[in-house]
Amino acid sequence: MMSLTNSSPGEIAKSASIASRLLATLSGAERDDALTALHEAIAKSRNDILAANSRDVAAAERAVEAGVLNQSVLKRLDLSRPGKFEEMLQGILSVRDLQDPVGNVTMRTLLDDGLTLEKVSCPIGVLLIIFEARPEVIANIAALSIKSGNAAILKGGKESTESFMAISKVISEAIAHTQVPKASIQLVETREVVSSLLAQNTYIDLVIPRGSKDLVRFVQDNTKIPVLGHADGLCSAYIHRDADPDVAVKVIVDSKTDYPAACNSLETLLVHEDVLHTIFPAVAEALLAKGVSLRCDPSSKEALSSKIVGQQHSLVSDAVESDYETEFLDLILAVKTIPGDDSPGKSLDAAIAHINRHSSKHTDMIVTRSRSTAERFMNGVDSAGAFWNASTRFADGMRYGFGTEVGISTNKVHSRGPVGLDGLTIYKYKVRGQGHRAADYSGTGSGKSWKHEVLPL
Amino acid sequence: MMSLTNSSPGEIAKSASIASRLLATLSGAERDDALTALHEAIAKSRNDILAANSRDVAAAERAVEAGVLNQSVLKRLDLSRPGKFEEMLQGILSVRDLQDPVGNVTMRTLLDDGLTLEKVSCPIGVLLIIFEARPEVIANIAALSIKSGNAAILKGGKESTESFMAISKVISEAIAHTQVPKASIQLVETREVVSSLLAQNTYIDLVIPRGSKDLVRFVQDNTKIPVLGHADGLCSAYIHRDADPDVAVKVIVDSKTDYPAACNSLETLLVHEDVLHTIFPAVAEALLAKGVSLRCDPSSKEALSSKIVGQQHSLVSDAVESDYETEFLDLILAVKTIPGDDSPGKSLDAAIAHINRHSSKHTDMIVTRSRSTAERFMNGVDSAGAFWNASTRFADGMRYGFGTEVGISTNKVHSRGPVGLDGLTIYKYKVRGQGHRAADYSGTGSGKSWKHEVLPL
Repeated sequence: MMSLTNSSPGEIAKSASIASRLLATLSGAERDDALTALHEAIAKSRNDILAANSRDVAAAERAVEAGVLNQSVLKRLDLSRPGKFEEMLQGILSVRDLQDPVGNVTMRTLLDDGLTLEKVSCPIGVLLIIFEARPEVIANIAALSIKSGNAAILKGGKESTESFMAISKVISEAIAHTQVPKASIQLVETREVVSSLLAQNTYIDLVIPRGSKDLVRFVQDNTKIPVLGHADGLCSAYIHRDADPDVAVKVIVDSKTDYPAACNSLETLLVHEDVLHTIFPAVAEALLAKGVSLRCDPSSKEALSSKIVGQQHSLVSDAVESDYETEFLDLILAVKTIPGDDSPGKSLDAAIAHINRHSSKHTDMIVTRSRSTAERFMNGVDSAGAFWNASTRFADGMRYGFGTEVGISTNKVHSRGPVGLDGLTIYKYKVRGQGHRAADYSGTGSGKSWKHEVLPL
Repeated sequence: MMSLTNSSPGEIAKSASIASRLLATLSGAERDDALTALHEAIAKSRNDILAANSRDVAAAERAVEAGVLNQSVLKRLDLSRPGKFEEMLQGILSVRDLQDPVGNVTMRTLLDDGLTLEKVSCPIGVLLIIFEARPEVIANIAALSIKSGNAAILKGGKESTESFMAISKVISEAIAHTQVPKASIQLVETREVVSSLLAQNTYIDLVIPRGSKDLVRFVQDNTKIPVLGHADGLCSAYIHRDADPDVAVKVIVDSKTDYPAACNSLETLLVHEDVLHTIFPAVAEALLAKGVSLRCDPSSKEALSSKIVGQQHSLVSDAVESDYETEFLDLILAVKTIPGDDSPGKSLDAAIAHINRHSSKHTDMIVTRSRSTAERFMNGVDSAGAFWNASTRFADGMRYGFGTEVGISTNKVHSRGPVGLDGLTIYKYKVRGQGHRAADYSGTGSGKSWKHEVLPL
């Protein structure tokens, strides 16, 4: 990989494309063997990697002192923290031990005697993955790519450059002794190279930007390659008129406060008018007790006026329209009243309409006792996650049981929500015949007709 | 719909988006009822539709006389041909009777007691479909969209404008009496409107251009909305050294000559050096007998020199490099020799590499007696269809048994190959809980742990 830093973006992309085709012909065992080798090599190179990492940490310390880097970034850089290196190593084995996402037959049809059709999962090809500065992430992403049979071009956050180069050198050397082609995993170092790679739509099949909104938007605006990612996580919850008050308090407080900086945290609360004076105050009090600021529309603010005391007054303010489209990523929540309406379903539809107009199609939730109301909400909300009486914070690959997560997608095609290994595959149709001709089925008396018989998988 | 021709592209797209969310909450039975109503209404309006169609036909006849329209287009316009109208009507019922692609649960996991995760197929949302001038296509596409729960904005070829307007008026009136919102199916009439709609990526989720390469390229180059389609169908076949000669002749002649203008027809033939003088001449003679011109590299041309006689000489010429990237759509075939090589798999890999470099990722085929060679070819070829000993002409939704076909995709994400109703769906994750909080699972002793138990579907 180090040797490739001098290659042009076109050469990098082309060599990745060629490698990807060979990678697609390897068995699951051959890909797993490469992950075993990767694990061993990284374990063996621990000292070299930590030495490189300490140079990143030292540079980051200087940057923090100079006031140009956040302390929290510095903390995430340090691979020598207790358990961190072991976690990285274990991560490779965990990915290795997941079910092979390649070669799964999802449809098998007997078209005619001796002529079968199969729909089989296969790698997408070449991924361009742009990721944050945590040094252990490169090992995880390399493992995911190899496991799913995809070649990957990687660009990591610049604060971890030394660590990434050390780890990628080890990866490169390790896979050189396996069936996985060396160009399957390539590291690039500058944003300029990334810009050029975004033009390589002949060779690169999918871009996965993991990082700031600005990065995601930049990528979306500057490439014809499909992009898997999410710029925003604007999650909403709706308290319906028949909500269980205890459930409402539990799931809304958790959605907002469990980890406010996460994309699956709650940003907007919709409250049915009929429960403004019953359920809502209890929810609001629990949120205020956790230090959450509430930006309320007039009705919801009025409902709280007699309930809040002392300092909590400063946490309640008037919402402006843009609050309903803001991802606060902080202890702030926008609150809006959904008018009660006697026609069946009208209030529910208004809540759904608000969400579809303002949310980022990430994860949205309803609190209700009614199964039919919940089902209508879950079908009507146009989001990757539609939740009933459960915290939006569950929208996560690990929590969904996917074993790992490449990212969360708010796209409407290919992959949505938390994306695991399956999201890095596509399918192809394999047809196996014995000299079959289409002309024999064209119906002008030549005799053959379709069987189209579903075969067991 | 007629009333909507005065709406702005933004209003058209927005109303489609709102309609799509309501459509997504309807049951399969409610969507099917709309198709039944559609069928009845079109049957009842037969005279009006045929009158409108006759105006299109008359205009086309004048255009043919003036030499500005092809006779074959004229023929396809005429809905009054025997059986044509009945076919259109039957098509709506056929789509109605397909399995509902919406609401299929493909994964169900018990995350913890009372907390379940489901992955459920759902409509994509709003489709923009641009299609050819055959008048019956609008009824088929409207039926596909409603069946799959998607709203659709339709633009058809201008030669059928009168027919489309008549049919869409009937569609509009018919669905007004059903649960399907009126704005679910909207017809637009000008290419200018289409250009503006391509900018509506907030509201439109997928564009499906069916038509000329130029149209597909124009759409791909002018929108951020995902595009499902194919610009080219450059299919290749490879005759391996161990091919069965009879099979080679049958499948290659069929792939090339069954319908040369189709995207799944053969354009390039790769021949293993060892069979240049054995199998290839038989294949070539069968092709020449059907009038196919062969553009040969020096070795393959030389192999034919002593075999061809008389007028056939004029059908064999020298290939130039661009022939291997040309979709002839005619009785022309490019031929290239794959060098024999003693290292196992080298020739096969060379054939695969040629295909991956030049093909359009549509459908490619190998003729071989060896299962392991065929499997390696099918895994290594980066195309939607990978065929063994069977004609490339089988790459078709009807032949695959999908019941219907929206189009063929050469994309590498979302949908590949012939796209049926399933290709018009995506999925969402539904989580049903009972007040579950993520904080209870964060591992710091609060006690709850994941079950991640696979539940039956």
